[in-house]
Amino acid sequence: MAEPLRTVAGSLITIGDEILFGDIPNGNAHHIAVEFRSRGFRLERMVTIGDDEDEIVKTLSRCHQESQFLIVTGGLGPTDDDRTNAAVSRAFKRPLLQDPGYTQWLKERLAKQGRPWSEQVAKMAQMPQGAIKLGVGMAGYFLEHEEVPCYFLPGVPHEMRTLVAELVIPGLEKRFPKRLVSVKEILRLHGYFESELNRRLLTLRAEASGVEIGYLPHDAEVRLTFLATAESEQVARTRIEELEKKIIALVGQEHVIGRNQETLEKVIGEKLRERGWRLAVAESCTGGLLARKITALSGASDYFDRGLVTYSNGAKEELLKVPRELLAAHGAVSEEVALAMVRGVRDGAGVEVALATTGIAGPTGGTEEKPVGTVFIACATPRQCEVEKRHFTGNRELVQERAAQAALIMLWRNLYENTEVRSQNSE
Amino acid sequence: MAEPLRTVAGSLITIGDEILFGDIPNGNAHHIAVEFRSRGFRLERMVTIGDDEDEIVKTLSRCHQESQFLIVTGGLGPTDDDRTNAAVSRAFKRPLLQDPGYTQWLKERLAKQGRPWSEQVAKMAQMPQGAIKLGVGMAGYFLEHEEVPCYFLPGVPHEMRTLVAELVIPGLEKRFPKRLVSVKEILRLHGYFESELNRRLLTLRAEASGVEIGYLPHDAEVRLTFLATAESEQVARTRIEELEKKIIALVGQEHVIGRNQETLEKVIGEKLRERGWRLAVAESCTGGLLARKITALSGASDYFDRGLVTYSNGAKEELLKVPRELLAAHGAVSEEVALAMVRGVRDGAGVEVALATTGIAGPTGGTEEKPVGTVFIACATPRQCEVEKRHFTGNRELVQERAAQAALIMLWRNLYENTEVRSQNSE
Repeated sequence: MAEPLRTVAGSLITIGDEILFGDIPNGNAHHIAVEFRSRGFRLERMVTIGDDEDEIVKTLSRCHQESQFLIVTGGLGPTDDDRTNAAVSRAFKRPLLQDPGYTQWLKERLAKQGRPWSEQVAKMAQMPQGAIKLGVGMAGYFLEHEEVPCYFLPGVPHEMRTLVAELVIPGLEKRFPKRLVSVKEILRLHGYFESELNRRLLTLRAEASGVEIGYLPHDAEVRLTFLATAESEQVARTRIEELEKKIIALVGQEHVIGRNQETLEKVIGEKLRERGWRLAVAESCTGGLLARKITALSGASDYFDRGLVTYSNGAKEELLKVPRELLAAHGAVSEEVALAMVRGVRDGAGVEVALATTGIAGPTGGTEEKPVGTVFIACATPRQCEVEKRHFTGNRELVQERAAQAALIMLWRNLYENTEVRSQNSE
Repeated sequence: MAEPLRTVAGSLITIGDEILFGDIPNGNAHHIAVEFRSRGFRLERMVTIGDDEDEIVKTLSRCHQESQFLIVTGGLGPTDDDRTNAAVSRAFKRPLLQDPGYTQWLKERLAKQGRPWSEQVAKMAQMPQGAIKLGVGMAGYFLEHEEVPCYFLPGVPHEMRTLVAELVIPGLEKRFPKRLVSVKEILRLHGYFESELNRRLLTLRAEASGVEIGYLPHDAEVRLTFLATAESEQVARTRIEELEKKIIALVGQEHVIGRNQETLEKVIGEKLRERGWRLAVAESCTGGLLARKITALSGASDYFDRGLVTYSNGAKEELLKVPRELLAAHGAVSEEVALAMVRGVRDGAGVEVALATTGIAGPTGGTEEKPVGTVFIACATPRQCEVEKRHFTGNRELVQERAAQAALIMLWRNLYENTEVRSQNSE
């Protein structure tokens, strides 16, 4: 009888005080997580520890026992606080041996730079018995210890990335040819609360054989995650696709923003390009964030004409033709001004669609009638203008982010439903 | 004899499949690392595990044994994959009890939203015996278990941030009044290479008793880090301040951007407010990022008038009065157009200072003469206009970020040196 297939799961250890002290975020761990997920290897734990030899020895022993593979980054350099090799030697009871090839390479490099050979540099080429050097011109080695493949990689991001892509993943795939493959997909929805969606999908959950559903709450959206584990990537993907179809039927296509990395900006860009429509935005409280999100995408110049960050009333009058009397009568933060802004930028630019935001991002500037977080968002299409009054909680950054997200959702909805007339304020 | 003071060190556990699968980077861990470091608490290890109850139980027990304090984030929500409370109950052998206050609050919130009470939501308010609810309107509790203070925090970033700032750090400071405090400060400099700075500071290093100097290279700046450990925050800070003074004398005040979180935007805003000057920006390749950085600060309306994201040539002509012939003769990405843009926005807005960017952010649109990454940056003050041609490497996001940073540095330098006339292109 053939052995049943299993998921291959391992541990990632990041070594370096700079992460623990918050000098830098752990970008290496995120990169490795993305790469491994996409190739069907599972990370069960990620541990970050400092340059302390005892702590490294303890963590190595523990993770080795609990893992089918082990990835370690950092601590392979020449300085005193690089302790990985010494710790591996102690944890795995393997003496350190000078690697002749790596030593030779280091000597040549130093000679070329006119720098002397030193004990510190020699230490880099002292690797635990059984280690096989990985790559050329950088630190890193492979060691199979008690049937667990262990990869020791440099902490320098581009070196680590090269080794992961060219040697670690291919090596693991060769080592575990038959395994359960996990595929993860994200479905991005708007217009639901997490708990509401959870309740709606409860019935589905039981029948969703082989797919785990998870939730990633995110400001204006809810992100559903699907994890399918199967004997091949193909089978796993098919299961997810079938489940997705059922879920979309349940929640309604109009609530689906997109999949995985498909942001609102991206989906909006595609819809605009499809129709040959151009977009302009007028921003007050979002201060350029809306334009910035739209222009972060390559090719945005195909559909994005201009963004006007009209912070002062003068700028609103001159650039958007917002009547001075309107500003005086209702204030810059008002339904009337939001509508005037969106019409002003649409007509001034001569484009089909436009967005406008005006509000109080805070922390100061709020009044009883219009507290901090009050934002008017307007959207214009060739057929209509629509305005929403919203109240966002959170600090300045969050209010700005939420207002920009809400504006994009409003545009997306208008592009999606643009055959219906459902405006609150039609012209 | 008094006991010698010791550093207080603890563990951070992040719970969530979304980090292990690479759906999101572990931003919470980075934030907590920064906050704790700045208040003299040390993180000895960070562990990220998935929504697996057995794994959470094991990790909690282990980290609890090895730590003077324990911080756990994530897994406190209402869905099936939120397992933290159940795991704490098992690991610490404390039954789960329904918290009446939190239950009440959840009921009221649901009622307000017109949503029904459910088992899922009830689960959120079931906390381990001895737990003390933290904050209002969000998950999170404190539990002292076998003399180790443990904080369980929501994974939602802004909720976690609020609790860390308002309750966790003050709580730990009260719990550990006498301890060795490590203070870390960052000094942000521009106009130096890391190796150049390193050479200049070599002499200083020996006499800098009690302060470790480190380097954090960062795009447009070099960040020097100072780590001092002493019996009080005051003593540690004084040591750093004395060293900082010597370093600033060595490198020159004009190369100092600021300290810690003092961004260029902040320093620029202060200088503009001081002078009573107003700022406007015209952006092409940075697509609103410059305006967004400036308006991210509260009070920016004191000095920021407008930002024009002139993506199309039409927008450049209409809004900035860039002559059509100039665009035709030199192309939108040129020294001439950058200068015309900066003058156009300065004069159109009637402000004292202005910035403009035009370039090729990529990945497409490059030519042999103007490859991807080519950016022209112009700065106008009442006395002069200056333009720089730059070439930035990296993907679209990096080119945009680097161009915006370079523009801010150009403005900062002009504000700092504005008594001298040092323009390349004076009017």
